[in-house]
Amino acid sequence: MDFRPGTIAAETSLADLPLREELRGKSAYGAPQLQVPIQLNTNENPYPPSAALVEDLVAEIRRLAPTLNRYPERDAIELREELAAYVSTRTGVSVTRDNLWAANGSNEVLQQLLQAFGGPGRAAMGFVPSYSMHPILSAGTQTEFLPVERGADFRIDMKTALAAIAEKRPDIVFVTTPNNPTGDVTSLAELTQIIEAAPGLVIVDEAYAEFSDKPSATTLLKTYPHKLVVSRTMSKAFDFAGGRLGYFVAAPAFVEAVMLVRLPYHLSVLSQAAAIVALRHQDETLATVAKLSEERDRVAAQLHKLGFSYVDSESNFLFFGSFDNPHEIWQRFLDDGVLIRDVGVGGHLRVTIGLPEENDAFLNAAAAIAESLNLTKENES
Amino acid sequence: MDFRPGTIAAETSLADLPLREELRGKSAYGAPQLQVPIQLNTNENPYPPSAALVEDLVAEIRRLAPTLNRYPERDAIELREELAAYVSTRTGVSVTRDNLWAANGSNEVLQQLLQAFGGPGRAAMGFVPSYSMHPILSAGTQTEFLPVERGADFRIDMKTALAAIAEKRPDIVFVTTPNNPTGDVTSLAELTQIIEAAPGLVIVDEAYAEFSDKPSATTLLKTYPHKLVVSRTMSKAFDFAGGRLGYFVAAPAFVEAVMLVRLPYHLSVLSQAAAIVALRHQDETLATVAKLSEERDRVAAQLHKLGFSYVDSESNFLFFGSFDNPHEIWQRFLDDGVLIRDVGVGGHLRVTIGLPEENDAFLNAAAAIAESLNLTKENES
Repeated sequence: MDFRPGTIAAETSLADLPLREELRGKSAYGAPQLQVPIQLNTNENPYPPSAALVEDLVAEIRRLAPTLNRYPERDAIELREELAAYVSTRTGVSVTRDNLWAANGSNEVLQQLLQAFGGPGRAAMGFVPSYSMHPILSAGTQTEFLPVERGADFRIDMKTALAAIAEKRPDIVFVTTPNNPTGDVTSLAELTQIIEAAPGLVIVDEAYAEFSDKPSATTLLKTYPHKLVVSRTMSKAFDFAGGRLGYFVAAPAFVEAVMLVRLPYHLSVLSQAAAIVALRHQDETLATVAKLSEERDRVAAQLHKLGFSYVDSESNFLFFGSFDNPHEIWQRFLDDGVLIRDVGVGGHLRVTIGLPEENDAFLNAAAAIAESLNLTKENES
Repeated sequence: MDFRPGTIAAETSLADLPLREELRGKSAYGAPQLQVPIQLNTNENPYPPSAALVEDLVAEIRRLAPTLNRYPERDAIELREELAAYVSTRTGVSVTRDNLWAANGSNEVLQQLLQAFGGPGRAAMGFVPSYSMHPILSAGTQTEFLPVERGADFRIDMKTALAAIAEKRPDIVFVTTPNNPTGDVTSLAELTQIIEAAPGLVIVDEAYAEFSDKPSATTLLKTYPHKLVVSRTMSKAFDFAGGRLGYFVAAPAFVEAVMLVRLPYHLSVLSQAAAIVALRHQDETLATVAKLSEERDRVAAQLHKLGFSYVDSESNFLFFGSFDNPHEIWQRFLDDGVLIRDVGVGGHLRVTIGLPEENDAFLNAAAAIAESLNLTKENES
């Protein structure tokens, strides 16, 4: 760390502190936040909020700012009503605010679920590569994380998955669908098999659900009310990564459970209001999802033409390769002003779908790399 | 719970879920959020943010809203700079952003410290009655909480405190000063004794520091950089309970430590911006602190005249009594339209200092209660 001049107590190092043993030597999570012209590394929606949304938000902040001296509505009732209406319309499963829980990003939602249902002496299983926060959140709540490798095609290998569940009997099973970083979908039939096999909870992480036309796992809630939790986020399709709003849909008993561990007043007045405004403008926002899905298919076709392989994606990113040294390739994209993500697995890299001109810049860089790797030639031969 | 009609899976009860054993039978934390004319129960600052602050915030939101599709600045650098400047000016101890950490309320700050330095197999000590979230946050992070009773005057009994530290050797010691719910201050000399005795961390919770004219514990950071963390909040003096912004001041190594457990992007674009705006208007806001301190002294004098006892307070509330059945007295205040706080200890109740007319309403209700209890008469005899 580069401490400011005059920083008090800068001579005390982390090694001097009584940090928990398991944290020693670890480094903080996070993609590099670099200033690069084309940022295609964190699966954000590249379309800024509409002018109408901005005006609506400004009006709402003007209305609420004079109440900032008061604590927020602790249980975010109105926001949960609006989320319930959205989920009901979008997934076709009619839920109420009692089925909904919200927090500062799906990370906080998942942390609360792990505090209530995981913890010391309990274990969570995930099918990797998948969302890299699942093991980190497990560690942060003292929950043992049990990784099970996906197949060579990066999809969940159902035989391996079911055998691992039967053998390890994890208290929690995470399934990310569409999966991050690979973009593939786990079908409802496969989810049903996993839920049937799981001895405890199954948390289906649907952060990218809006980019897929497959049915949501919410359709399974009626059948598995005591086992299934579907977590979601407004960060991706909803254009709202900066607003930090995640939620889950489940039986009301799960909401009661996380209320035992949630920090009181966890959602600020501003967070609640901004999320409600964003939901009000869902039609404008979700129109961008169709555009992004089209662009994703265009980029995938181009990558194929250039000789890259990729996983069929129903999200707003593509997992492509394969590379002997993916970090070197990542650096070459960066040198061309295009920041993508090296997730450190499977000889692949992940690119977020951006605006058409951003995707073109990415594809130009990719073409140069393909040529230098002789990929295009190999593909033609 | 009163589930909405048509709520999916409402028949599944909490008892059907594999909740952690230690959470069974617990109920969610939180003061009742009742709609009552006079709300003097959560130690909020009753003065709304100034019109200038509101306009400044609205302008800032208008500027930033178009970027809400992007993740926030992950390490809240600018906000930490501003907090450092504030702490330096206010406490006279020159710190930089590397000494500062911020999160969604001091609850999240304390939870992160407990994740990094507490956890399974470790223990935190507190001098009770004190901030009721300390044991709850300890439980939420699997840290054993060791309560040590304060003296009959509700102040820390130093002999008992030092003996308990020597005997139990807690990994973390919490000291809240001014203390909540009692309002008394632990002196720097006493803090020094506690820090010297403590084998691990001492977290000094200064949520109400601005209401006291005693020096901040930040003045001890130079001497005890590897043991001392000073936590603070913008909820109270700063008029910003709805904005949810807590922070700590410590050696930079503590910031490095919590970065290992913090949820990435934990502070939204809106939270960071709103806190920066509030800090920019600190002169207006802190002017209310002087008014509240005067009112506190007026209310205390009146309570004394009415025959109540109270603890000398350097915060924005008073702890008064004593009552054989405090909850019944709490209800009588509520029946008179005044919501105060029954913290469930020591035959006392806690009243937050409000606007002068709110304090008058409280004192009127108190006078009627004093009369019915024959307190005034007893006092005169």
